[in-house]
Amino acid sequence: MASFHRTAAILSIGDELTLGQTLDTNSRWLSDQLLSRGIVTIEHATVPDDRNATASAISRLAAADIVIVTGGLGPTADDLTRQALADAMSDQLIEDDQALQQITAWFASRSATMREINKVQALRPSRGLALPNPNGTAPGIHGSVHAHDVYCLPGPPHEMKPMFEAQVVPNLRPARKVATRALHTFGLGESEIAARLGPLMDRGRNPVVGTTASQGVVSCRIRYESDATDSSAATAIAEIESQIHSHLGAHIFGAESQTLPSVILNLLESRREKLATAESCTGGLLGQLITDIPGASAAYLGGWVTYTNELKHDLVGVPETNFHPGGPGAVSRETAIAMAVGGLERSGADHCLAITGIAGPDGGTPEKPVGTVWIARASVGLLASASGGPVPPRTEARRLQINADRTTVRDYSAKAALAMLRFYLIGKSETTMMRQVK
Amino acid sequence: MASFHRTAAILSIGDELTLGQTLDTNSRWLSDQLLSRGIVTIEHATVPDDRNATASAISRLAAADIVIVTGGLGPTADDLTRQALADAMSDQLIEDDQALQQITAWFASRSATMREINKVQALRPSRGLALPNPNGTAPGIHGSVHAHDVYCLPGPPHEMKPMFEAQVVPNLRPARKVATRALHTFGLGESEIAARLGPLMDRGRNPVVGTTASQGVVSCRIRYESDATDSSAATAIAEIESQIHSHLGAHIFGAESQTLPSVILNLLESRREKLATAESCTGGLLGQLITDIPGASAAYLGGWVTYTNELKHDLVGVPETNFHPGGPGAVSRETAIAMAVGGLERSGADHCLAITGIAGPDGGTPEKPVGTVWIARASVGLLASASGGPVPPRTEARRLQINADRTTVRDYSAKAALAMLRFYLIGKSETTMMRQVK
Repeated sequence: MASFHRTAAILSIGDELTLGQTLDTNSRWLSDQLLSRGIVTIEHATVPDDRNATASAISRLAAADIVIVTGGLGPTADDLTRQALADAMSDQLIEDDQALQQITAWFASRSATMREINKVQALRPSRGLALPNPNGTAPGIHGSVHAHDVYCLPGPPHEMKPMFEAQVVPNLRPARKVATRALHTFGLGESEIAARLGPLMDRGRNPVVGTTASQGVVSCRIRYESDATDSSAATAIAEIESQIHSHLGAHIFGAESQTLPSVILNLLESRREKLATAESCTGGLLGQLITDIPGASAAYLGGWVTYTNELKHDLVGVPETNFHPGGPGAVSRETAIAMAVGGLERSGADHCLAITGIAGPDGGTPEKPVGTVWIARASVGLLASASGGPVPPRTEARRLQINADRTTVRDYSAKAALAMLRFYLIGKSETTMMRQVK
Repeated sequence: MASFHRTAAILSIGDELTLGQTLDTNSRWLSDQLLSRGIVTIEHATVPDDRNATASAISRLAAADIVIVTGGLGPTADDLTRQALADAMSDQLIEDDQALQQITAWFASRSATMREINKVQALRPSRGLALPNPNGTAPGIHGSVHAHDVYCLPGPPHEMKPMFEAQVVPNLRPARKVATRALHTFGLGESEIAARLGPLMDRGRNPVVGTTASQGVVSCRIRYESDATDSSAATAIAEIESQIHSHLGAHIFGAESQTLPSVILNLLESRREKLATAESCTGGLLGQLITDIPGASAAYLGGWVTYTNELKHDLVGVPETNFHPGGPGAVSRETAIAMAVGGLERSGADHCLAITGIAGPDGGTPEKPVGTVWIARASVGLLASASGGPVPPRTEARRLQINADRTTVRDYSAKAALAMLRFYLIGKSETTMMRQVK
């Protein structure tokens, strides 16, 4: 056995992967898990359901200190990982009594009939170890190739992930500690962030800072590596985090698993305020993003999808004249604000976000090309009016120009609306925080 | 040069991939593209931004007739694919005049300043060929290792995909033809489909039939391989397709790029009918799925997100007594139908779909555990009433029990609602088509 696990390799097995029918998400997840525990993945490989290709890949990848193999543990003739691992170990398969009992129990607990074919799943190399699978019929296997650890886990993520956590993590022997911290921003591009952070992002520093961009959110990832006895990680990370905050300020909306919707729901909940939405081109996406968060009902009331002009008028009270020739039209500051104010008044919420735009690919004009989107916010007035009459809502609106495909236009619009509300809730003027379209 | 491209290998380059910060979607896309053109991918590999690791991976993977490399062509010090390809070719890098001109022109056309660092992107192996990139600054490179083709393309998908289509596809030399056909189903599990199709799914047949499952949709994929002169593909595929239809019937909702929303929008448009939605636990997801389809406005009017009981009453007229102690509650047949009927009447649509349920992870009770969802449909009455009074809407509702995580509960609920409408539009009783919860 290698005394430490410094490096890892991930092998995914399956024709459906190499042929491009299924997207492999296991390798990314496993690499991320390993890195957070101090082990660097040096290669991902994917091979078909082929005994020789799998055996030779395991043997080659066992140059790394630990190899994680996923897939190919099912009961059918094209599930060959057991046999390939035995080949790479120059070993024979034997039936594991305990594994067979677990498989039998799995079927019994579901009142299902275990077929003869499922017995093959109890096989393991004679010098290997079967790993119980609480969520399926395929046990995992722990083996050793070139004196390096090889863990074979089933392919379905809901079976693989709990087994990795229960069977692999406790046996990891990292040589060093890795501490990480992710800070998430919205509204700045990756190159703008790089320019602001400057030498903080130089390679070879420790902590090292990198950026990744995903669907409009740019994340700064701090990584600090140290030997196992070092206790300075928290201080080193906090120091860099504070420098990043001083460069990016309120553009940082959250850290780690926080998202724009989760941060906004927390802000609203702490203020005991409620949110509603009125959507046109996003068609429900904004509400969907908000309600992705468990417990969203504590601050989100609901809203409208007013996809047609008629519903914009009938449901949230946008004046019909907006849609007449010479009027501002459905995609305009006036309509976005009318949607936000109408939604605010009809929902009883404290804030209403509205989105109307041209998501494409068709429907653009020279004045309002595809990607033109108006977002607006209306919030209940803060002060009682002097006359004692109704307090007018406080509103703002802005035009976005998103030169991208339909999916990106919609996603960015929804997030920009959330960002607009966040800047208001934290007392920042969004016009100074987000790029303006002339 | 190999006379034919029978096999392919895909290599992805980047620390962000091996460390698990970014999900590689290029390999799946490229494999799918290659397979549809008769070339079978036999391996995916991913290595870090490391010159030696990349060179040795290229050299090893060039056992395949064609290697596609993505990533590592940027201008910075960690972009080493150019150098690694030269290493694998035992060649030197030289500056490509035409590539340099194109990079210069790219910056000029954007009124941006080209930095000295970008010149490195014009380098290529002396025996290689630079490939123009219309969407970015990184040219691709065509080289040859072990007399097999190697194509290096930039990593960003919006740059890589057009270059693959323009620069790689015309130079593919498949040895055989592959014809494929995908049929999509909803409402049956993968194992139930396998049982119905029986020997049609046996391995080694030609055409071969396989299934893949993604977010509730199970697709049957027919693949027919033949030599380049064979002209029987269409007949062979059509024969199998007809057999699959006879086994799965109306569960097949579409083929190829069709989705449940696209099929329903087409059905509605051909009938000149309109759809509205009233959502609770899905929070806008149903509207979002529908409006993902360009041109959805031809048949989709919009709707409501009634996340709270108050909005269910105020906006779509669910009786307040539904929510009183002893009433049926927010998650019930009565509330789902009231939402659908209220939405139908207030939108002027021909059909309204409603969803109310417990998406979790909290909020379940013994009688209504997490994953309990009611979906309902209301459609305008088909016949004038004898009295000449208003025609009552035609409604149906059903309870789902989805034992899965919040995301899956929401996604499956939205698709089940769409499937319910589809069965109605094609004249099938959904109670005979979809599994019932007791």
